[in-house]
Amino acid sequence: MNTEPAEAFQARVAKHAALADPARLRIVDLLTLGDLSPTELQAELGMPSNLLSHHLRALEGAGLATRHRSEADRRRSYFRLAADALEGLAPGAGRGASRVLFLCTRNSARSQLAAALWNQVSGIPCISAGTHPAGSISPGAIDVARRHGVALAHVSPRRLEDVGRDDDFVVTVCDNAHEELSGRRGIHWSIPDPLRLNTREAFEDAFTDISHRVRDLAPRLRAA
Amino acid sequence: MNTEPAEAFQARVAKHAALADPARLRIVDLLTLGDLSPTELQAELGMPSNLLSHHLRALEGAGLATRHRSEADRRRSYFRLAADALEGLAPGAGRGASRVLFLCTRNSARSQLAAALWNQVSGIPCISAGTHPAGSISPGAIDVARRHGVALAHVSPRRLEDVGRDDDFVVTVCDNAHEELSGRRGIHWSIPDPLRLNTREAFEDAFTDISHRVRDLAPRLRAA
Repeated sequence: MNTEPAEAFQARVAKHAALADPARLRIVDLLTLGDLSPTELQAELGMPSNLLSHHLRALEGAGLATRHRSEADRRRSYFRLAADALEGLAPGAGRGASRVLFLCTRNSARSQLAAALWNQVSGIPCISAGTHPAGSISPGAIDVARRHGVALAHVSPRRLEDVGRDDDFVVTVCDNAHEELSGRRGIHWSIPDPLRLNTREAFEDAFTDISHRVRDLAPRLRAA
Repeated sequence: MNTEPAEAFQARVAKHAALADPARLRIVDLLTLGDLSPTELQAELGMPSNLLSHHLRALEGAGLATRHRSEADRRRSYFRLAADALEGLAPGAGRGASRVLFLCTRNSARSQLAAALWNQVSGIPCISAGTHPAGSISPGAIDVARRHGVALAHVSPRRLEDVGRDDDFVVTVCDNAHEELSGRRGIHWSIPDPLRLNTREAFEDAFTDISHRVRDLAPRLRAA
């Protein structure tokens, strides 16, 4: 499941450890804007030079900052943020998928919304299905989609067995479907069923939750 | 200089501390894709349940994860990544500026390139100037800009005293100018002088360095 090399993972742990100190986090914050000499940092932080040196060495050791000699006064050096220093903190792209399958129980609301939103942000094809499909898409889902300018595909709820493929990257968007299918390849989004309350607000909440998750996942799946 | 509230800063320190542990970073990596129950996490990580509980409490305490009860099996709960959990790790927008002034010694290469690149990515106006301006823009700067499809403004090098304003947000792009003007409001980018080697590669390196820094700074300055 985890495709990141062990060294890269350890490097991220080390970066977080280096940033888990207020003085070092402050130094890095300052370096995200521009380069600073030890003297300038000392003035900014009000910190004894030996303590500052300790922190700067820790930041260099974690690959967060690098030191360069001034082209003017050669006795002076500048610290700068290492290239991509803060890019590896959160995980990057991870999985390959030839098709995404959004799955809930009835395929009448959450999975339909997820599929419509997915098509707006990703070139990887997707479908939706249900473990026990309803007869039609829920009016609340159609309404919330329309309020946000999203067109739901004109497809009736469909059974997983009829449309699913073994190589689908399955995203279960309801707890029931996830627990019914435990062990299947994919991920789970525990999104409350908007049909339980069946209010406009419940559909808005589900829509917002699904949009955020879709937007976060899309850049992390690569077409396979 | 630091406009972030103390509590927000401490919260970032606490998040890094929580992530400075391999097991917890791994849990968060998994949660960035989808929600997981403690049982699923245990299977994924091969970790005793009491140790896992400890780590999950630490992640909840740092505001990185939240727990929700399953809608299906009510004895089960799912952990999900907290909203914007990983957004506050790197610093956000910071400074206000009515105009940006890119400054080097001769205003013949680095500051000219910085101003041209800035105009591509920010609506905040900018100018460039030199502490001791040359007679004309360096041919190497014009060439590297053209290779990257960037047009340099047709302005001769200008003196800081002639064009600078007291409220400019000054970005010094050479060590000499920075050290000559120490104390002035703004930031410093210690970019090696491409004219020292005066090779195509030296100009390419300077161009790349300046582009990255401009692209990183632009979203962090707000028009003032």
